[in-house]
Amino acid sequence: MSADKCALAILGFGNIGSGTAELMRSGRERINSNAGREVTLKYILDVKFPEDSAFKEYFTNDFSVIENDSDVKVVVETIGGCGVAYDFTKRALNAGKNVVTSNKELVAEHGHELLTIAKERNVNYLFEASVGGGIPIIRTLIQCLAANEITEVYGILNGTTNYILTKMSDDGVSYENALKEAQELGYAERDPSADVSGKDTCRKICILAALAFGKQFDPGKVSVRGIENMDGLTVPPGSKIKLIGRAGKTADGGISIYVAPHVIDKRNLLYTVDGVFNGIVVKGDAVGEVLFYGQGAGKMPTASAVVADVIDAVKHILTRKAIFWEDGSDTELAPPDALGDL
Amino acid sequence: MSADKCALAILGFGNIGSGTAELMRSGRERINSNAGREVTLKYILDVKFPEDSAFKEYFTNDFSVIENDSDVKVVVETIGGCGVAYDFTKRALNAGKNVVTSNKELVAEHGHELLTIAKERNVNYLFEASVGGGIPIIRTLIQCLAANEITEVYGILNGTTNYILTKMSDDGVSYENALKEAQELGYAERDPSADVSGKDTCRKICILAALAFGKQFDPGKVSVRGIENMDGLTVPPGSKIKLIGRAGKTADGGISIYVAPHVIDKRNLLYTVDGVFNGIVVKGDAVGEVLFYGQGAGKMPTASAVVADVIDAVKHILTRKAIFWEDGSDTELAPPDALGDL
Repeated sequence: MSADKCALAILGFGNIGSGTAELMRSGRERINSNAGREVTLKYILDVKFPEDSAFKEYFTNDFSVIENDSDVKVVVETIGGCGVAYDFTKRALNAGKNVVTSNKELVAEHGHELLTIAKERNVNYLFEASVGGGIPIIRTLIQCLAANEITEVYGILNGTTNYILTKMSDDGVSYENALKEAQELGYAERDPSADVSGKDTCRKICILAALAFGKQFDPGKVSVRGIENMDGLTVPPGSKIKLIGRAGKTADGGISIYVAPHVIDKRNLLYTVDGVFNGIVVKGDAVGEVLFYGQGAGKMPTASAVVADVIDAVKHILTRKAIFWEDGSDTELAPPDALGDL
Repeated sequence: MSADKCALAILGFGNIGSGTAELMRSGRERINSNAGREVTLKYILDVKFPEDSAFKEYFTNDFSVIENDSDVKVVVETIGGCGVAYDFTKRALNAGKNVVTSNKELVAEHGHELLTIAKERNVNYLFEASVGGGIPIIRTLIQCLAANEITEVYGILNGTTNYILTKMSDDGVSYENALKEAQELGYAERDPSADVSGKDTCRKICILAALAFGKQFDPGKVSVRGIENMDGLTVPPGSKIKLIGRAGKTADGGISIYVAPHVIDKRNLLYTVDGVFNGIVVKGDAVGEVLFYGQGAGKMPTASAVVADVIDAVKHILTRKAIFWEDGSDTELAPPDALGDL
């Protein structure tokens, strides 16, 4: 292990930010050993801090302190959204720091721009935690399937809607009651619109499509149908409804990306993916179909994906991982039905 | 892309060796782009060659030619077993070449020794294709779960026995008839003993255990029960029998590894893993349970795992991937029942 030290700053002390801080502390030895050097938590940035926090000593509300501290080699962004998170991410990358994020909105909307800055500054912008929580789907798409031409990626990418749909089909409760229960259990937010409208799934499938097909697709152009209104979908006995995000190559070489509820029967790999779990299927020309399954959200699973990226960033501090996609935001998408049945 | 060239030799021109050669040819551009430099197939070694092969120009039966050719940076070993494969692997590593293999027997029996030589020579010994065919389980255990303490790994690791068990439960045929059908379809070999005795599953679970727990375990010490004799196993309605390889930490800090048929009910993640498919569950302290599912064998899925390793070896030619495990072959294993129910 090298004697070099390497400091970490966490932006945002919500669910995932605090989970990351806890995991950095509890898994310290293993993380240092895997990273090949000592990784020290130095700052946690938020607008307000819990008074009784065990991480009080790290708190700051001044990003410029982090930006100007050359000890800070890795910045974890768990603020979310495209506001300050966007600004801080650009500033951190421009200051030559690696950035690790769970922010799917920012990666889906501005991935190409941020990866371009990362490339220019020879640092990493990593986002394993942005899709599928603790499921290592981003790495898999990048590395493991490097030997395949990927033809299609699809899956259940949102745990909240999958919980609601599972409740409706297993217990026969109404959409409204299932949503209420999901809110009471903390699976759905008070304003559940990003989940139930399909917008969250749309961001995630756009990130997977960018990796699989090498360019950014504008989430605003994707055909999105959520689970708020499923009139007209009849469910044959033994089948289930699942909200699916899907991206694939069409027969004539185009790309189609869409989000819609699907009737899934027993033979489909996603049939048993219930509750808050996610399942993602990747189709490659050589490997065939591969499925990844796990908790798609939650504090610790998502924090473990963040920490895996931190380790990777530290390991690759001198040899940047070549993650990149082109600007394809002006690409016209093929219609959803161009992909045929699931 | 660098202008450096980098030659490849394939040892053994059976199913996986020929699949690798085909994929290196058909996926050439994508592979070179992912590897960051041109990777050229230069030799294919076997004892006899098919007369009409499209790869005739590469054939040799003299390993010393490969060993002494400094252009050869990566050697793919798909011979299998612990005979010449063992000798050639040591010689290739000692000659400073990266070695990529699908040989589970060799990795399970001599992994520690071969990884030690690789470490000393600063080259890679990679074996993604040795477990789970095209499922990227080895990478996942090494990299993606670096942030977790792994407590248990288990799964359906042998497609042949899973095909036989699925046939028996779905169609009610006898063990003998299901085996015969598997042989006719090419899923089972003429001598099926390594599969049906559980030996193949044992080698694979020993490799996963070595990665998860950091040391080599002697496959000969593992309690192994195959599917040849399942007397006494009663299957409640709606349940299925699956041959499971399992490795985990016991309550008092020991390690238990075993192979045995299990009665699996509907709630288990492995319930829907049928036919020749494999399913592997990893439990980590932060990530919870993650399942990986795909074709666990077959020419092209396994070849795609070999090629992914070739790309990785070329990318890491200057910065060796730190895969290593200690010699733990004298470790006493805890009994199977120390892990509790699945």
